[in-house]
Parts: sequence; structure tokens; C-alpha cells
Amino acid sequence: MSTVEHLAMSPALDTRTPWSEQEFEALLRDKGTSYHIYHPFHVMMAEGRLTRAQLQGWVANRFYYQIAIPVKDAAILSNCPDREIRREWIQRILDHDGCHIGGIDDAGGIEAWIRLGEAVGLSRDDVTSLRYVVPATRFAVDAYINFARQRPWQEAVASSLTELFAPHIHQQRIDTWPQQYPWVDTAGLQYFKNRLTQARRDVEHGLRFTLEYFSQSRAMQERALEILQFKLDVLWALADAIMLSQCRIEITGPKA
Amino acid sequence: MSTVEHLAMSPALDTRTPWSEQEFEALLRDKGTSYHIYHPFHVMMAEGRLTRAQLQGWVANRFYYQIAIPVKDAAILSNCPDREIRREWIQRILDHDGCHIGGIDDAGGIEAWIRLGEAVGLSRDDVTSLRYVVPATRFAVDAYINFARQRPWQEAVASSLTELFAPHIHQQRIDTWPQQYPWVDTAGLQYFKNRLTQARRDVEHGLRFTLEYFSQSRAMQERALEILQFKLDVLWALADAIMLSQCRIEITGPKA
Repeated sequence: MSTVEHLAMSPALDTRTPWSEQEFEALLRDKGTSYHIYHPFHVMMAEGRLTRAQLQGWVANRFYYQIAIPVKDAAILSNCPDREIRREWIQRILDHDGCHIGGIDDAGGIEAWIRLGEAVGLSRDDVTSLRYVVPATRFAVDAYINFARQRPWQEAVASSLTELFAPHIHQQRIDTWPQQYPWVDTAGLQYFKNRLTQARRDVEHGLRFTLEYFSQSRAMQERALEILQFKLDVLWALADAIMLSQCRIEITGPKA
Repeated sequence: MSTVEHLAMSPALDTRTPWSEQEFEALLRDKGTSYHIYHPFHVMMAEGRLTRAQLQGWVANRFYYQIAIPVKDAAILSNCPDREIRREWIQRILDHDGCHIGGIDDAGGIEAWIRLGEAVGLSRDDVTSLRYVVPATRFAVDAYINFARQRPWQEAVASSLTELFAPHIHQQRIDTWPQQYPWVDTAGLQYFKNRLTQARRDVEHGLRFTLEYFSQSRAMQERALEILQFKLDVLWALADAIMLSQCRIEITGPKA
């Protein structure tokens, strides 16, 4: 009864040849076709067709995902007995929560997101109170947290690979918002700028690990693809939740 | 980081007078205004406007909720040290899973739902394989299971009170489907007929308990209302998920 069911086949019983590293990586990257950059709400966003209230609704709801990230990453740490992995992975928590360690004084990604909220006209309290977060946003994001808590840490690492596709969507916002949403204070775009570098570094680590660990068998490689799909589904469902909370819709017929 | 945050105020610090039992019950019943009977997809269903494929999609997705019910009820049992409560509550699991005990031989509600699937033209395997269950259905239903697992059993009992509103929607289906969906084998309606009696008996027990237990303070009564709203949100998000999976929609403008 979990969101992603466990792999039925033991790797030892799988006599198929695993995909080569190149093939496996290409299959993971192919999953980008269901990244939420193609969701109608994100398409509207990129085309400058969101109202101020709709953009605010997106920022406010998406904040629930932002605060889930360090909780999810701490779950991975707490499930992981490998100190080397933990020493790399903890950087993600520092990035989001911020830190004041050694010479570094970083307010962190969550604070940057709150400033994005202010840049689109929300108050700090509008964002941090979660008062605009709709139930289906919580259900989707909580599914991701529970996955990281309940599944082996290697699976949770694989679930982070939607970062493969993130630099594109961040760059798109940096490029288009100043023209499309000139009323947004450009200082608010700092979150996206930071993530361009951070996501590239993070995904390098997560991808290297996934390619190695899940290549023990074809069944495990297939499991990694399934996990990445689960995470893509979380992001898509989050976009659905925001769309339904912010848009009037009409049912125009049955799905083809 | 849970779907419904814990009550901040200790009941002992709440000096407000609790609502009377009648007032409290009326407030719980008022929540019926956000029951999913008013969701656009359920309105279409009641008006006979669903296609065969759409009704099948509903039955197949909703099956994921059906199989969650005994899991959720077992979580309540496992968290509850009160044997008297457990002896009443276990009936719900027997109702859904079925049983062959004493003189009783009941195939159970899950089996009845599979037969509803067959009555709308799905195969048993279409239903039980969960192959038509979309991610957002899982996220919403899993939120309910996790709530029952992680919260005190008294809160999980209160979350079952959407049953207050269920007889109406079951009766509606029994009354309208034979005209609206004449192609559905009427034997399939047995699930709804069984639930008319079962839901009335169940809610009697859950409501009596909630009115007494949560009336220790006004803050606890408010918490019960919040919990009922959470469960209504689960059902609504489930209907949203099914709607988006089964209907073409058009975004016609921002929410008013």
C-alpha cells in the first residue's frame, strides 16, 4: 500500500543483461518528456499568461515543496549508513536551510523563496503561514517525503534525478520573467540563479550514484526509471493542484 | 510536516466554553457543504453525463480508495488500546475484506466493488491490477492512510465522519444509474446498497465517540472540525484526480 510498490523480482533472479551506462543514462534522460515544464500551467507561466494572483498562488503553493526538500534530504541521511554519501548529501540541506559555518554566511534556498514571494507581492507571512497551500499540494509533496522516509536511501537518491531537467526550467524563468512579468522585482529571481549552479552539481552526484548502484541488474535499472517517473508524477500533480486552485476550467469532453 | 498540523493549544489552556453537543454536531454536519457530491465530476455522474470510459475510470481509480479502507481501519486498531472500541471498530474491516465466521459468509465490500467494476465493463484484473489508478489518486488516498497511521486513533475515528454524508450519495447512485446508465448491470449496485446500512451504523458509533471525546474543550472540538475538513479534502482531491484523468479541460480564465 505504498505509492511505488516494491520491486517484485530479486536482482539475483534477473538473468537479462543490464543496459550499458550510456543506454541507462539515455533512458533516464528520456523521462524529461514528462517533466512539468510541459504542464499547461507552466506553459502559461513561460508565455507570460499568468495574472499576478496566479503567479502568487504558484509561489505560495510551491513553498510547501521548498520546505519539504531539507526534510526529505534529512530522511535520506537518517537512512544512510555510508558516511561518504552523507558528507556529500548534507550540502543539500545546508543549501536550502542556509548556514553560518566557517567563512560562509548563506541565508539559504528557503529564505530565497520567501524573497521570491515578496518579489511577486506576497508578504513573508503569506508565504510562511502556508495559508494559501491547497490540500492536493500537500498530498503530492507529502507522498515524496513519505517515499524518502520509508524506502531505502538509494531509491530516494534516484528520486532526486528530476534535477536533470531543472536547469532548463530555471533558466527559462530567468530569461522570460523580466519581459513577461515586469512587475516582479528581479531581485526575487536569485533563487533560480542559485539553483542553476546547485542543481547541476547535485545531479552530477545523484546521477553518478544511480548509474552505478542500479546497474547491478536490468530489474534494478527498470526500478530506477519507475522511481524517476514517480517523482515526475509528484511534480505534475503539484502543478495540477495549483492549476485547479488558480484557474477556472471547463470540462469540454471526455479524454481522447 | 504532516498533512494536518497538530493542535498547538493544550486543551487545559483553553478557557472557552465548549459548544453544546447539539451545536457541535450541527457544525460537523455543516461540513457536508464541501462533500464531493458537489464536485463537478460527481455532478456529471449524477446527471448521467459520463461516458462508459469515464465511469470505468472512476470505478478503477476509486478502487484504490476501497482497498485503503481496511488498511486504515487496521491502523486505528493497532493504535487503540481500548478493547471495547476495537471490538466495535473491527466490524469495518470484516465488512470490507469479507469474512467466513460463524454463520456469516460475506464476500465483503472490496469484492462487491470488483463486481461493480465488472458491471461497468471492466475485467476483474483491470480493477485489481490498479493499472488505471493515476498518481494523484494514490497521493490523496495515501495521505489518508498515513494520517490514520501517524495520528492518535481518536483523530482517525473523527476522520471517518465523512460517512455522515455518504448515504445520500449512495442512494443517489441507486436511484439514478438504472435510468442514466442502463448499460450498467444492476447487480453491480450491490456495493452501494450494502453501504446504505453499514455507513449508517458506522457513523452512529463514530459520531457518538467524536461528540464525547472532542468535547473536552473548544479547541478539541475545533480540531475535530479541521480533521473532518482534511478528510473531505482527500475525497475532493480524489475526484479532481479522476476528473483530470478522464476529461479534456480548458482553462478559461483565472479563478474569480
